[in-house]
Amino acid sequence: MTDNIYLQDIGQKAKTASKQLSVASSEAKNKALDAIAQALTENAETIIAENRKDLSAGKENGLSDAMLDRLMLDNGRIIKIASAIREIIALDDPVGKTISGTKRPNGLMISKVTVPLGVIAVIFEARPNVTADAAALCLKSGNTVILRGGKEAINSNMAMARVMREAIEKSGLPADCIQLIEKTDRETAADLMKLNEYVDVLIPRGGKGLIQSVVNNSTVPVIRTGEGNCHIYVDKDADIDMAAEIIFNAKASRVSVCNACETLLVHKDIAEFALIAIKEQLDKKNVTIIGDEKVQAILPDVIPATEEDWGTEYLDYKLAVKVVDDIDEAISHIAKYSTDHSESIITKNYEAAEKFINEVNSSAVYINASTRFTDGGEFGFGAEIGISNQKLHVRGPVGLPELTSYKYVIRGNGQVR
Amino acid sequence: MTDNIYLQDIGQKAKTASKQLSVASSEAKNKALDAIAQALTENAETIIAENRKDLSAGKENGLSDAMLDRLMLDNGRIIKIASAIREIIALDDPVGKTISGTKRPNGLMISKVTVPLGVIAVIFEARPNVTADAAALCLKSGNTVILRGGKEAINSNMAMARVMREAIEKSGLPADCIQLIEKTDRETAADLMKLNEYVDVLIPRGGKGLIQSVVNNSTVPVIRTGEGNCHIYVDKDADIDMAAEIIFNAKASRVSVCNACETLLVHKDIAEFALIAIKEQLDKKNVTIIGDEKVQAILPDVIPATEEDWGTEYLDYKLAVKVVDDIDEAISHIAKYSTDHSESIITKNYEAAEKFINEVNSSAVYINASTRFTDGGEFGFGAEIGISNQKLHVRGPVGLPELTSYKYVIRGNGQVR
Repeated sequence: MTDNIYLQDIGQKAKTASKQLSVASSEAKNKALDAIAQALTENAETIIAENRKDLSAGKENGLSDAMLDRLMLDNGRIIKIASAIREIIALDDPVGKTISGTKRPNGLMISKVTVPLGVIAVIFEARPNVTADAAALCLKSGNTVILRGGKEAINSNMAMARVMREAIEKSGLPADCIQLIEKTDRETAADLMKLNEYVDVLIPRGGKGLIQSVVNNSTVPVIRTGEGNCHIYVDKDADIDMAAEIIFNAKASRVSVCNACETLLVHKDIAEFALIAIKEQLDKKNVTIIGDEKVQAILPDVIPATEEDWGTEYLDYKLAVKVVDDIDEAISHIAKYSTDHSESIITKNYEAAEKFINEVNSSAVYINASTRFTDGGEFGFGAEIGISNQKLHVRGPVGLPELTSYKYVIRGNGQVR
Repeated sequence: MTDNIYLQDIGQKAKTASKQLSVASSEAKNKALDAIAQALTENAETIIAENRKDLSAGKENGLSDAMLDRLMLDNGRIIKIASAIREIIALDDPVGKTISGTKRPNGLMISKVTVPLGVIAVIFEARPNVTADAAALCLKSGNTVILRGGKEAINSNMAMARVMREAIEKSGLPADCIQLIEKTDRETAADLMKLNEYVDVLIPRGGKGLIQSVVNNSTVPVIRTGEGNCHIYVDKDADIDMAAEIIFNAKASRVSVCNACETLLVHKDIAEFALIAIKEQLDKKNVTIIGDEKVQAILPDVIPATEEDWGTEYLDYKLAVKVVDDIDEAISHIAKYSTDHSESIITKNYEAAEKFINEVNSSAVYINASTRFTDGGEFGFGAEIGISNQKLHVRGPVGLPELTSYKYVIRGNGQVR
């Protein structure tokens, strides 16, 4: 619990707005989302002007080019943000669905109905598109949102939040459905993690440091997202061409994402053929191979792997590679080092495939496909707020249905126990 | 994270046993449960002898009669514990169920399959029946369990844990499916709350102090159970006889439970008639009425209510009573003071009933029935490990299905993105 008055006030407002938003019709929510999408494009110039302030400050503070690129907003990106919001409008309203229902012997009618989580706090880093994206997903799922973005994007975020709040208010819902924390110091973030009285769920979006800090400090329930030390295991009965193509895709199609492959495990019986074929593909994008002794014996230019490599999410053109004696060793290695995100087996063997999907207990377990498919859009959920790798509440893509809880509604006519 | 070596060892063993238990067949798990039930009754004498040690220590330390009664085990109670385990055997295995499945346009077959949570830690107080109960529910749902009971019951718990572990091992599953923490100091409990590397979920079972301490200190995800400041609202269009009967049941049938009614809200238009009829019922069990000024003006012997009373879970023959101007005031009062457990409206008015179930956002919302029905058995779930009043993962009774998570299994034939 915290006595931070600034946050108490924000929390109180979020809770109050939640009463109206949680029972708002799909029509009302979609109208607000449409107003937001329109307002963002109409106010693009103002937003871009504020974003320039962040960019110059970022340059002064020595942000890397990659970070500056993530921070940057232009007309094209704002149009993309608006069209992502319109895609959310088209998705099913996840609230108010009856999941199941029973009539008890005493005549009580019990139904289980989806409801919003309530107030969601999202802590993220310097990507201003997250501001609009998280706000829209929360609004559609009937949740009021408290956004806390990185200080590098504060001017952009303030401009976007102002535009979105005005649009919501005009559409008839309370502006406080979306609130931005304008104090970007660490103490305020730490206090937000203890705002249990008002916040139902906290979602961190960002790097390992941010997520670890939230897990260690939050007394508010957390949906933990985004760490992906994903493995692919090439079984002795693999189609080697397929394996090479899948590994190239999983490693090199986009290296900065959580569903990219970080470690490759290869069965010893096919290690030589497989590794040569795989390296041929990976060479197209100059992927560095970091391997154990057996890998070093097969391939040239391999950097020796240390214990640390097996636990590292490179998010880079680097791949850790290990030769294993059998599928059991592969499964044990995954159990030890995986972050429970996504793992894949490449095999033509039915028994090996079934063993792998039964014994590997990650959020998404694949047979003969790239780990890159762990994604809300690819799963057919539409938009998502992240990929969960905890076991409570949600695993894998966190889409709109995963941003709801449920309540039991019990209709009686005088029953006592 | 903690560096407590004693707990690291327990955590490691729980994780290792989890590998085998999580994929065990229903048959193997039921066989283990049957062995446990049988062993507990066969070893009743030893367990009772150990329980006597706890009872004498408890008497010396001045435990109340109520607490000593909860602590006490005799033949009858052990037979009850065994038969509760046999009821769990009869329930459906919640693991390995396909919840949904889709075929994507690219040919990927995605299915969502239930899996155990993994390792569950349960922290509870001095009720030795919880030891067997929690262990059996976790085992049936494929979760290994780490039990940490109160020091008052340590001898009873150690005896029961030993008997259960031997029985499991004989049945062919690892003894470490069930482990008891034998160190009952607070530091070890605090360290358990930070054992993220091995524990997937922590469930506190006990009073408000215990739950608050777990919520404030645990970095392991928590399923929060058991706080029930439950309300009944008697609408102006209520059947007064029904209201009186339901309130009598909800308040006085068992006062020490979380689904008992603690506050009664009555619409001003029928306050006089309703309160007289309700008091007549409550007088049968000498329930003390703590009321606002309007209640005091209607009934004799009312203790004036303070602000604190609205937030108190009495767990006693006491009822806080308030006269409200309308249903909106009732709903606002509930939103302010409720612990989101169970609330009920008594009314013949369709509109009021619908408004109440839509706008009151507790785990269980009733029309014309007693709040006492919020219970796994009464909901038809069979056994439960508690009643959740958080919004993440589970709300209401936590039965076997709620002790599972899920994973996505994706079958492909070479798909890349």
